[in-house]
Amino acid sequence: MFEHHFQSHPGFDIHIIVLYSSNMTNKRSSISNKDIVLQTASTLFLTKGFQVTSMDEIVALSKVSKTNIYYHYKSKEELLLAIVDQLISRYEERISRTLTQDMSIPAKMERLFRILTEDNEQIDYVGGCPFLTLYTQTSHSSSEARAKIKAFFDKQLQVVEKLLEEGVEKKELSRNLPVHETAALIVTSIEGALFLTKATNNPMLAQNLIQAFASMLK
Amino acid sequence: MFEHHFQSHPGFDIHIIVLYSSNMTNKRSSISNKDIVLQTASTLFLTKGFQVTSMDEIVALSKVSKTNIYYHYKSKEELLLAIVDQLISRYEERISRTLTQDMSIPAKMERLFRILTEDNEQIDYVGGCPFLTLYTQTSHSSSEARAKIKAFFDKQLQVVEKLLEEGVEKKELSRNLPVHETAALIVTSIEGALFLTKATNNPMLAQNLIQAFASMLK
Repeated sequence: MFEHHFQSHPGFDIHIIVLYSSNMTNKRSSISNKDIVLQTASTLFLTKGFQVTSMDEIVALSKVSKTNIYYHYKSKEELLLAIVDQLISRYEERISRTLTQDMSIPAKMERLFRILTEDNEQIDYVGGCPFLTLYTQTSHSSSEARAKIKAFFDKQLQVVEKLLEEGVEKKELSRNLPVHETAALIVTSIEGALFLTKATNNPMLAQNLIQAFASMLK
Repeated sequence: MFEHHFQSHPGFDIHIIVLYSSNMTNKRSSISNKDIVLQTASTLFLTKGFQVTSMDEIVALSKVSKTNIYYHYKSKEELLLAIVDQLISRYEERISRTLTQDMSIPAKMERLFRILTEDNEQIDYVGGCPFLTLYTQTSHSSSEARAKIKAFFDKQLQVVEKLLEEGVEKKELSRNLPVHETAALIVTSIEGALFLTKATNNPMLAQNLIQAFASMLK
């Protein structure tokens, strides 16, 4: 593991953590420049903001040459799309792994909750959630990024509704549970909790939410 | 009512609606320049973004002179704080009016929900919620704005928890309702719904949420 740590703005520390094995260090340029650029841009867009990050800053922080960066990504928008794709596949991979495991529906729901919230304890996303952060910073500049984010949340709603239906069928959840409405409640409250945990600096919100879900799904 | 309507960016319409009586039109400068500037900045910050709005743009759109604007507001940050204050008092006034009315607790909860969501059907906030929009656009530039937004949500959590406690006491809600956790669930889900209604372009989310609350608070 390789860690850059520097102070780019007064009072604002940026840590960029790039994962690669130590024997790759000497051939960085051929193997992982693209990844380093992506990781640097991702850290800046998510912890500082898309609008206030310039390509020059990505060049300076990644220590990859401008020519090399522009070879891989023609613009900040292209980087943004690559970051959104990477984030979505990372979450979706973890979510689908959970869905196929042999667990009760309430246990799967709790695991899903943890997948959607656990990164946020380590990374100081501007808006508490990576998708919310990218969405609100780019809503008038990248309709493609917005469409991907919309699809991610639409799918999340479907996954939760399907889990709840399965729970009702298996009699793990009350058959009176309004599954469509409860799926909306769960997905919106997780998203709201990501933002509000950050905005109110209250780490207990997520904990309270887990307990509210448990009480509601009894 | 006076309405500016112009196209400031390709494909991006801005409507600025300034309310004042028609007999004020001729003495605009002495009476309401400050309000016009505030309203113009508010519209731009909320529908386009704080970071991408310049003071020059506020001058151009408000048609108030630069000297006059800077007489009232020294910087974009001062305008931001005035906008946050105005938004908070507007919401808090409507909320406290609801709290003192003679209604059942579930009816008050629904009214609260409508207060927090109704503006959003008319105004196309970048992030679906005015506070979320301003927070995510200014999180590293204005700690004072962030503190005000934090206080607004902390208070909202307290108000909802107190309403739920009152409902349990009056036997309008189940005495098994975990009030602290349910307050967190309600406040986070409303906030998440504001963002997700915008991000997924799904106006049914809020409706589903109202039904989920009704089912949960039975």
